[in-house]
Amino acid sequence: MAFTPLHDRVLVRRIEGEEKTKGGLIIPDTAKEKPIEGEVVAVGPGGFNSTGSRLPMSVKVGDRVLFAKWGGTEIPYGGEELLCIKDAEIIAIVE
Amino acid sequence: MAFTPLHDRVLVRRIEGEEKTKGGLIIPDTAKEKPIEGEVVAVGPGGFNSTGSRLPMSVKVGDRVLFAKWGGTEIPYGGEELLCIKDAEIIAIVE
Amino acid sequence: MAFTPLHDRVLVRRIEGEEKTKGGLIIPDTAKEKPIEGEVVAVGPGGFNSTGSRLPMSVKVGDRVLFAKWGGTEIPYGGEELLCIKDAEIIAIVE
Amino acid sequence: MAFTPLHDRVLVRRIEGEEKTKGGLIIPDTAKEKPIEGEVVAVGPGGFNSTGSRLPMSVKVGDRVLFAKWGGTEIPYGGEELLCIKDAEIIAIVE
Amino acid sequence: MAFTPLHDRVLVRRIEGEEKTKGGLIIPDTAKEKPIEGEVVAVGPGGFNSTGSRLPMSVKVGDRVLFAKWGGTEIPYGGEELLCIKDAEIIAIVE
Amino acid sequence: MAFTPLHDRVLVRRIEGEEKTKGGLIIPDTAKEKPIEGEVVAVGPGGFNSTGSRLPMSVKVGDRVLFAKWGGTEIPYGGEELLCIKDAEIIAIVE
Amino acid sequence: MAFTPLHDRVLVRRIEGEEKTKGGLIIPDTAKEKPIEGEVVAVGPGGFNSTGSRLPMSVKVGDRVLFAKWGGTEIPYGGEELLCIKDAEIIAIVE
Repeated sequence: MAFTPLHDRVLVRRIEGEEKTKGGLIIPDTAKEKPIEGEVVAVGPGGFNSTGSRLPMSVKVGDRVLFAKWGGTEIPYGGEELLCIKDAEIIAIVE
Repeated sequence: MAFTPLHDRVLVRRIEGEEKTKGGLIIPDTAKEKPIEGEVVAVGPGGFNSTGSRLPMSVKVGDRVLFAKWGGTEIPYGGEELLCIKDAEIIAIVE
Repeated sequence: MAFTPLHDRVLVRRIEGEEKTKGGLIIPDTAKEKPIEGEVVAVGPGGFNSTGSRLPMSVKVGDRVLFAKWGGTEIPYGGEELLCIKDAEIIAIVE
Repeated sequence: MAFTPLHDRVLVRRIEGEEKTKGGLIIPDTAKEKPIEGEVVAVGPGGFNSTGSRLPMSVKVGDRVLFAKWGGTEIPYGGEELLCIKDAEIIAIVE
Repeated sequence: MAFTPLHDRVLVRRIEGEEKTKGGLIIPDTAKEKPIEGEVVAVGPGGFNSTGSRLPMSVKVGDRVLFAKWGGTEIPYGGEELLCIKDAEIIAIVE
Repeated sequence: MAFTPLHDRVLVRRIEGEEKTKGGLIIPDTAKEKPIEGEVVAVGPGGFNSTGSRLPMSVKVGDRVLFAKWGGTEIPYGGEELLCIKDAEIIAIVE
Repeated sequence: MAFTPLHDRVLVRRIEGEEKTKGGLIIPDTAKEKPIEGEVVAVGPGGFNSTGSRLPMSVKVGDRVLFAKWGGTEIPYGGEELLCIKDAEIIAIVE
């Protein structure tokens, strides 16, 4: 089974409940706009620029990313709840 | 009889009441923004970019798609209620 | 007498009170955003894209169309009340 | 004396109080967004598109036009009150 | 001393208190959006279009113009209060 | 020490408390939108147009300018409070 | 470990609690919109212009910058709280 996000959307699996992540990031409860760490599961083909060409996506499958907590659509997937967000909502890649 | 959506619109038949869909997706009642699974029935010709060319549509007739619950226009069609949504409102293709 | 809509406007004659339309569409009273079926009476020359060329119109005179109930300007015309709407407000062509 | 509208503006003389206009149009009191019939008195040079060329105007002096009741600027002119509106606010030409 | 408006701005000297202006225009107190007649004192170089070229200004020094009453910035200048407005706010040239 | 504004920003030193400025301008207390006179201290490289080229700045270091009272960011600088504003907020150059 | 901001984002380490900064800047408590001084830790690849090319970033790693207090996302990083802001929110480079 395959699941293909459309446009500039990215499907991510949240990494929750880790006090200290692989990248050394601690996600405190009190941050005013708390970013979430996750892993990219699927990547859309990219949105269009004003002349009709697709803009490249910023991430690829397997990337560890930080993204804003709010926004996106929850996608139930094989017992999990993945999150479908837009590429522009991904703040950074953690390596 | 034919029914042709215009611009970047897509006509979809909702797949409701399936606890587990063909693609293994479970649509829970409690998701904050619950996506809906459906089948593409008709596809418009695409909207225009800023220079006047049509942008390609992301789906084709027969595609299984996920789309946001809100938005779109209900179109009664042969006893059914189809939904006419914009291409950009389709989150993903389920295969 | 001729009546020429300007820009991307379309003049339509509403088909009201038909329980079942030619295209098999039933327009229920309770749809949350009820589309209206109508016949295209006159079509404008098209709006401009960002470089100054006209975008083609999506419909032609005689087309049966579905359009959103709200919006547009009522144009009294020979005893009738026609409706002048924008091309982008036309949801689909019914054939 | 000459009076030249600038940009995409059109100066129109309203045709008020005619129950039945030359074009057969009846302007009822109760229309939700009542269009007004008028005659074009002067036409601006056109607005600019995004690359700096002027967009052509949709009307010429002498045209009978329909336009929305609201909007525009009243211009007193030789005892009359003309109305200066934007080209895009003109709904249709009546011939 | 010179005073150079920037961008698409125009410096105008209002012509107030004239019951009947040179151009035959009467400015009544009761107009819903009362235009003001004035004389162009200085003209900016023009704003930029989307590709970075300057758009031409619509008026030149000495032009008699009509402009909307609201908006703009009052510029005290040698005992007078001039008004700095944007080119697009000038409705028409009176000749 | 150097201080470089970014994008289309301009750093200005306000000229306050002068009843009559060098340019003959009197800044009254009662003007509805009171412009401020100042001297340009530093100039950014310019913002980008839609195709990615920088738009030229309208002012240079040393220019006497008028700008709107509201907006901008106060920048403490060597005991002074300078103001960082956008180029488009500068109304005019006073010479 | 590497941390790569995406799009036009910049990761900055705030320089707080310095009465007088290296650049001679004093950050008072009472400024209406208080800028913050910081050091650039990581820089994204740049956002896209309308034709799909990346716009250059205004800063590089190590730059001392001023940026608006509000906005951005706090990123916990090795015990510190860094801030991820957009390039356009950086007001100036301090040298």
